[in-house]
Amino acid sequence: MSNTIALYPLSNFTFSTKEAQPEEDPSVSARLQRLQNNYEDYGMRRTVEGILVVHDHGHPHILMLQIANAFFKLYVFYFIPPLLRGDEVSVFKPGDYLKPGEDEIEGLKKRLDDRLAPPPGSQFDQASHGINNDWEIGDCLAQWWRPNFETFMGEGTSIRAIIISILHFFPEHYPFIPAHITKPKECKKLFVVQMPEKKVLAVPKNMKLLAIPLFELYDNAARYGPQLSAIPHLLSRYNFIYQ
Amino acid sequence: MSNTIALYPLSNFTFSTKEAQPEEDPSVSARLQRLQNNYEDYGMRRTVEGILVVHDHGHPHILMLQIANAFFKLYVFYFIPPLLRGDEVSVFKPGDYLKPGEDEIEGLKKRLDDRLAPPPGSQFDQASHGINNDWEIGDCLAQWWRPNFETFMGEGTSIRAIIISILHFFPEHYPFIPAHITKPKECKKLFVVQMPEKKVLAVPKNMKLLAIPLFELYDNAARYGPQLSAIPHLLSRYNFIYQ
Ligand SMILES: [Zn+2]
Ligand SMILES: [Zn+2]
Ligand SMILES: [Zn+2]
Ligand SMILES: [Zn+2]
Repeated sequence: MSNTIALYPLSNFTFSTKEAQPEEDPSVSARLQRLQNNYEDYGMRRTVEGILVVHDHGHPHILMLQIANAFFKLYVFYFIPPLLRGDEVSVFKPGDYLKPGEDEIEGLKKRLDDRLAPPPGSQFDQASHGINNDWEIGDCLAQWWRPNFETFMGEGTSIRAIIISILHFFPEHYPFIPAHITKPKECKKLFVVQMPEKKVLAVPKNMKLLAIPLFELYDNAARYGPQLSAIPHLLSRYNFIYQ
Repeated sequence: MSNTIALYPLSNFTFSTKEAQPEEDPSVSARLQRLQNNYEDYGMRRTVEGILVVHDHGHPHILMLQIANAFFKLYVFYFIPPLLRGDEVSVFKPGDYLKPGEDEIEGLKKRLDDRLAPPPGSQFDQASHGINNDWEIGDCLAQWWRPNFETFMGEGTSIRAIIISILHFFPEHYPFIPAHITKPKECKKLFVVQMPEKKVLAVPKNMKLLAIPLFELYDNAARYGPQLSAIPHLLSRYNFIYQ
């Protein structure tokens, strides 16, 4: 395990856009129903996500995606008076769940390509543009376990339950297998991704790519939730070399 | 880097006591003054701490120390009305700062021995008892940086500042080097310690050894502070094997 990561400046990366990628499930209940159906057919869902680190004037930043009309906005913001909302933002780490039997490293590379690689035949097409667009996947930084199918943000949840879940961040996932859970429903693995010196990133039109500084994520579960706000802890053992 | 850690049951370990180890500095201001003096003489302080993991009926627990009359109690509890205190506890990870030039792994082993090894000639003396009491130091899990000598818990701090610092956990240490800090005053490294199958631990009489479950630390900065409550995140990438 190397404790050193070379970080390249945000300005080294070229950003383009590509076709929108609509969400697979039109609602929270559809998402949970699919999770449950897949569990019955294939067992525990395995999800892989990448932590893409760059620097901006010497401060580490994480590249994350923000989607328009995320579930969170649709189902929760609707019910909650503005005063209680705070200013949570719905950002997420690029990645997705794996097919049964799919290798996690190869699967993560494919999910990162799906989200961020320039499409074939485009201006920045990898083959014609000659930029090495392969992803270099580093250490596993964390695992998060989902003990069950319930969510505190689904339809039919009482307004009080929704408010409590937001204020206290009642988690769907835990960074350990909770006591007496023998069959977790999902295991989400976070991998650090070593960004190359230069790269073209094509962002789906319905999403935004954000570069969020570590100090903004730190101690900010109120805005980013428990998974994103833990990233500074998970990266703290690395010494960054600013290129 | 191995992603697997074997955990042995708490009941495998034998606990005895040894002479009290009074704190080096009698007050917060003395502690900060020493930190500052040492900084001027030797540069940034390097501190090493061990995360000792065992299991109790299949749940991971961290071994930590609690000291009677900790600074926290002396200087803060005194000023704050019981209602505002919550029930913070002053526990800490075994470890201490290194001498200039001292190797961090050998230094951590020595600090762990100072705190927890049975003293020579005692009932559980390593040599006579035949138990291998060497420490097996694993991966570095995290680094915490102290940007300056100030503390929000020192004497002379206003009651309001103390209350705010506790409620919001205004940190002395950060899990990254804060922006525009070129000369951090301390770097604290946390290492996971692979506990052997059996071991005798001798606890100084003015301290208590606690086994705190991961789920108790998780999301509980209010009680344990930012460093201890981050431990479940830092350990989440390991798969534990319960022996
Ligand atoms: Zn910036
Ligand atoms: Zn700056
Ligand atoms: Zn227990
Ligand atoms: Zn139990």
